Amino acid sequence: MEFSSKLLENAVNEMSQLPGIGKRTALRLVLHMLRQPKAQTTALSQALMNMRTSIKFCKSCNNISDVELCEICANPNRDEGVICVVEDIRDVMAIENTSSFKGLYHVLGGKISPIDGIGPHDLNIVPLVEKVKSGTVKEIIFALSSTMEGDTTNFYIFKQIQEYNITTSTIARGISVGDELEYTDEITLGRSILNRVPFESSLKL
Amino acid sequence: MEFSSKLLENAVNEMSQLPGIGKRTALRLVLHMLRQPKAQTTALSQALMNMRTSIKFCKSCNNISDVELCEICANPNRDEGVICVVEDIRDVMAIENTSSFKGLYHVLGGKISPIDGIGPHDLNIVPLVEKVKSGTVKEIIFALSSTMEGDTTNFYIFKQIQEYNITTSTIARGISVGDELEYTDEITLGRSILNRVPFESSLKL
Ligand SMILES: [Zn+2]
Ligand SMILES: [Zn+2]
Repeated sequence: MEFSSKLLENAVNEMSQLPGIGKRTALRLVLHMLRQPKAQTTALSQALMNMRTSIKFCKSCNNISDVELCEICANPNRDEGVICVVEDIRDVMAIENTSSFKGLYHVLGGKISPIDGIGPHDLNIVPLVEKVKSGTVKEIIFALSSTMEGDTTNFYIFKQIQEYNITTSTIARGISVGDELEYTDEITLGRSILNRVPFESSLKL
Repeated sequence: MEFSSKLLENAVNEMSQLPGIGKRTALRLVLHMLRQPKAQTTALSQALMNMRTSIKFCKSCNNISDVELCEICANPNRDEGVICVVEDIRDVMAIENTSSFKGLYHVLGGKISPIDGIGPHDLNIVPLVEKVKSGTVKEIIFALSSTMEGDTTNFYIFKQIQEYNITTSTIARGISVGDELEYTDEITLGRSILNRVPFESSLKL
């Protein structure tokens, strides 16, 4: 693509760094911004910068939060003995929408994925093992997507906490293999949490 | 969608103002930014702001340009007697890619579209009529998408310049009715410019 303007070219190039946004889509979006009031582009730029610079993560569950301890962790009515392990905030939002879970979460921040260069040490796994060691946890529910990376991550964590003799389960496989959790409808997702199975039995399937 | 963070919510809301970007896609993009270095979000924000604040339009053809007169208008080898009327810069880029046109462009900045509240006075039509009046123009090629809005716009301009007795043509209808110009392959587009037909005869089809 040849551009008649460096300013336009830079904007399109930066926009097309985002996943799923090609050069054509980026150009379409950028031309749309040019037709809208300047204030809209200012608002977008500032919202992105503010988020990227000031965002915080809950010191207990690693979920995105504007305060030290997120709303869920700070809620005394939630059961701190049950921890649902998820990949990212989208999964927390999806499960919260089902209103079927009253425990706490632990956000890993990704899945083990050698192809993408993501190993166990790039994820928020150590604090989870520490929580289990501390003795307050009765059950860990693995709620990662049922992909190869999700299974690998589940198994890695399972090996780390196995010796502490707590209950481990995975959400029921009503979710099709390979499906992303966040795109699962609320009923399926809610039911699969209620019907969770012991993690060890899921290994034998 | 309920968010655990106002910063995140604002970023997602602003992002989802863009056409074709829903809340879910916006959240996916914003979470991607959080996993990338801060510098990437800074670069994106600044590129968008710089573009929106400093972008200029060629004083002759209204194409996006960083200088007063765009490269095409400033090129002495282009034929200023032939003017190709297009909707926006994407069409200029698409036609330039075919290397089949050696005249100049006139960028309208849109199409007449009552539904979207876009009338003739919202478009860059008057300067085109002035150019025709000035006597330097021998031919006007209408290269808008062949949609209802495109046809309406062509016809509106045609009525304004009819009395000056210049050649008017539309690009050949090798382009399927309803198709957007920028998604047409280069060969079809190049050929449809070479095979352009007198505008009046296109009305009888
Ligand atoms: Zn928390
Ligand atoms: Zn120009």
